[in-house]
Amino acid sequence: MKRSGKSLERPRAKALKRREFLTTAVTATAVTAVAASSFPKPSLSQGLKKWRMQTTWPKNFPGLGTGANKLGEFITKASDGRLTVEVYGAKEIVPAFETMDAVSSGTLEMGHGAPYYWKGKVPASQFIASIPFGLNVGEQNSWLQFGGGQELADKVYRKLGCKFFASGNTGVQMGGWFNKDINTLEDYKGLKMRIPGLGGEVVKAAGGIVVNLPGGEIPPALASGAIDATEWVGPYNDLAFGLYKSAKKYYYPGWHEPATLLDNFINLEAWEGLSGDLKAIVQTANAYANSYVLNEYIANNNAALETLVKKHGVQVKKFPDEVLIGLGALSGQVIGDLASKDALSSEVLKSIVKFRTGSIAFAKVSEQAFYNARVLPFDWVSL
Amino acid sequence: MKRSGKSLERPRAKALKRREFLTTAVTATAVTAVAASSFPKPSLSQGLKKWRMQTTWPKNFPGLGTGANKLGEFITKASDGRLTVEVYGAKEIVPAFETMDAVSSGTLEMGHGAPYYWKGKVPASQFIASIPFGLNVGEQNSWLQFGGGQELADKVYRKLGCKFFASGNTGVQMGGWFNKDINTLEDYKGLKMRIPGLGGEVVKAAGGIVVNLPGGEIPPALASGAIDATEWVGPYNDLAFGLYKSAKKYYYPGWHEPATLLDNFINLEAWEGLSGDLKAIVQTANAYANSYVLNEYIANNNAALETLVKKHGVQVKKFPDEVLIGLGALSGQVIGDLASKDALSSEVLKSIVKFRTGSIAFAKVSEQAFYNARVLPFDWVSL
Repeated sequence: MKRSGKSLERPRAKALKRREFLTTAVTATAVTAVAASSFPKPSLSQGLKKWRMQTTWPKNFPGLGTGANKLGEFITKASDGRLTVEVYGAKEIVPAFETMDAVSSGTLEMGHGAPYYWKGKVPASQFIASIPFGLNVGEQNSWLQFGGGQELADKVYRKLGCKFFASGNTGVQMGGWFNKDINTLEDYKGLKMRIPGLGGEVVKAAGGIVVNLPGGEIPPALASGAIDATEWVGPYNDLAFGLYKSAKKYYYPGWHEPATLLDNFINLEAWEGLSGDLKAIVQTANAYANSYVLNEYIANNNAALETLVKKHGVQVKKFPDEVLIGLGALSGQVIGDLASKDALSSEVLKSIVKFRTGSIAFAKVSEQAFYNARVLPFDWVSL
Repeated sequence: MKRSGKSLERPRAKALKRREFLTTAVTATAVTAVAASSFPKPSLSQGLKKWRMQTTWPKNFPGLGTGANKLGEFITKASDGRLTVEVYGAKEIVPAFETMDAVSSGTLEMGHGAPYYWKGKVPASQFIASIPFGLNVGEQNSWLQFGGGQELADKVYRKLGCKFFASGNTGVQMGGWFNKDINTLEDYKGLKMRIPGLGGEVVKAAGGIVVNLPGGEIPPALASGAIDATEWVGPYNDLAFGLYKSAKKYYYPGWHEPATLLDNFINLEAWEGLSGDLKAIVQTANAYANSYVLNEYIANNNAALETLVKKHGVQVKKFPDEVLIGLGALSGQVIGDLASKDALSSEVLKSIVKFRTGSIAFAKVSEQAFYNARVLPFDWVSL
C-alpha cells in the first residue's frame, strides 16, 4: 500500500450528481488535497490497523452518510479494534470527488460514495450504480451475488486500484420536482431540468435542456423559473432540502434511478493485506450497511411523503404512461449507445440486461403482483 | 447456559408448514431427542467457543438451508474460530421442530427456522413470520430495524429464552398449485387445499377444506383428486419438488406469504455471554444471511419459472381481482381475531399495521409504480 507523501492528482472537474451541493454544504474542517498528504499516518503497532474512510457525503448525511457510519462502527466493533475504521465526511481529508484518487493511491484505505461518480475514470462504473428502467434494489443485490455482478464490479474497481462492495441503496428515487406539467413526451422539449447522469442523457434525447447547478442554487433557480424542474433523491432527503418551497408538483416514479447503489471502495493492496477474518468482517459489515441504508429510506420516506403532502401541500403526480413509454424507449437507445463505446461497459450492461429479462418475468408474478393486489379495495385489519 | 443431561421436553405434534416433508425427507444421521442430551459437549478451552446450530430444514436445502450454512460459515470465519458454529440439518441432533426446545434449554446454542413454527409456544411469533396481505420483504426489514420490530421480536423470543435475528427471507411466495380454476371467491367453497398457518385460516374462512399432508403424499393426493390444491414456496423450490407433475395451474400472487422471514434464535444465556465483538459478528453475519437467502430466491426463481412454463407446460394464472378482494377482507378479519386473543400478538400486529399504512402510501409512488412502468410496451436495450 503506497503511503508516500506525493501530492494527489487532481482530476478535472466533472459534472457529477450532488457534487456541487456537497462541496458547498460542507464547510467544517475542510482541508486541501495537498495538506492531506501530510496528515499523520495510522499507527500499525501490535498488529492493530487503523484505517481512514472518507465519504463523498457530508458527515452524518441522512441515509447516505449513516450507512458509512454503520460500516465503520461495525468493522471496528466486530474486529474488537484490530481494524479500526475512522469515518471522515466529504472534504475532511480531500475534496469529496477526490476520494477515489486518495483511496487508489493509498492515502486513504477506504471510501464511500456512488459508482457513477467515477464514470470519468472508468465509464463502466455508471452502469453499476443504477440504470433508467433497469433493476430494482432486490434484483440488483441478487445480480451482484448470483448473477456475476460482484465479479464484474470487482473488475471495474480493479481498474481504480480498489476492491468493491455494495454498501447502501436508496431504492427507487422520485421523478423530481416540476413547475410545469408533464402530459406528453413533447412537454420535455425545451424543459430546463437539473438531472445528472444517465437520466440526464435521456432527458436530453427527449429535447430537454439539461443544466447542472450547485445544490444551494437549485431552490432560487426553481422559484425564478431559471429552471423548470430538478430531481434529487426521495421524500426523506427532499423534505430536509426544502425543495417543496420552490416547486409543488412532485412526479413519480423515479424511472431514471430505480435503485441507486452506494459503493464502499477499498485500496486493493490494503484489502489484500487483510487476514481472512478481517476480510469476512468487512464483507458482512458491508452487507449490514447495505440493508441498513435501504431500511432507513423505506422507514423515513413514508413519513416524509405524508409531511410533504399534508403539511406542505405538495401535489404527488404520476408520469402518464405515454411519457413513461417514450422515456423507456429513449433510455434503451441512450444506454445502449453509451455502453457500446467500450468493452467493459458492454460486458456489464449485457449481464444486467440478461438478468433483468428474467427478473421482469418473475416480478410480474411476485412482488409486482403482490403490490397491486394489496391496494385493491378491501378493508384489512382494523385494531 | 444450562448444559444438564435432562431429557428435552417433547412438545405435542403441531401441524406446521413443511413439517411432514422435512421429517420424511431427512433420513441421514437422525437421532432421537433423548440421545441428543448425551452428545459430547463443546470444548471451551482457551476462550474458544464451539456452538452447534440445528436448522429446521434438511442440510443444504436450497434457499432455506444455504442461508444457515452462510451464517455459520461467516461467524466462524469472521471470528477466526473464536466462535465456531457447526451447522446441523433437521433431525441430526433433535427432531426438526424440537430445535426451539433444544435451544431454549441450552442443549444447542443456535437454531434456524421460521417464526410461525413456534406459534404453539408463543402465538405472537406467527405475526413476525409473514402476514396475508401484510409487509413485503423490504418493508419487513425496515420495520425490524426502524419500526420497532426488532424490539418486539426480541420480546417474543425472550419468552422462548432466545435472542432473535432475521436470517433469510423467501420474498413473495407463489399462490399455489391448483387442479381447479379459481374464478370467484365461491370457488373456494369445498376446495380441498393443503395450506398451513394464517393463509390456511383465511382459506377456511372462505369455505375451503384445509388439510395437512406429509410432503411426500402431496403429489399423489393432487394427482388422484384427494386434494385440489397445495401451496409450497416459489418456482425455485417447487420445481425441485416436482409439483408440476401433479397440477398444471400455478396461481399468483402468494397473498398469504408476502415475505416469509427465517429466524436465527440463540440461547439467551449463550448470547449474553458473548463479548461485544462476537455479538457484532453474529449480528452482521445474520444481515449477510438475510440478504443472501433473498438474493438466492430472486436469482433462481427467474430461471425456475421459465423451466416450469417452457419445459413442463405449466399455466401461470393470476387470481382474479374479485378473489383477491375477498381474500383480503377475510384476511383482515381472521388476523385481527387471532391477534386479539393475547396482548403480545396485539402489540406486534398493531405495530405492523401502522408501518404498513405508511409503506403502502410510499410503495404506490416508488417500487409499485416502477414495477408497473417497467413493463409498459417499449423496447429497452438491445445488445
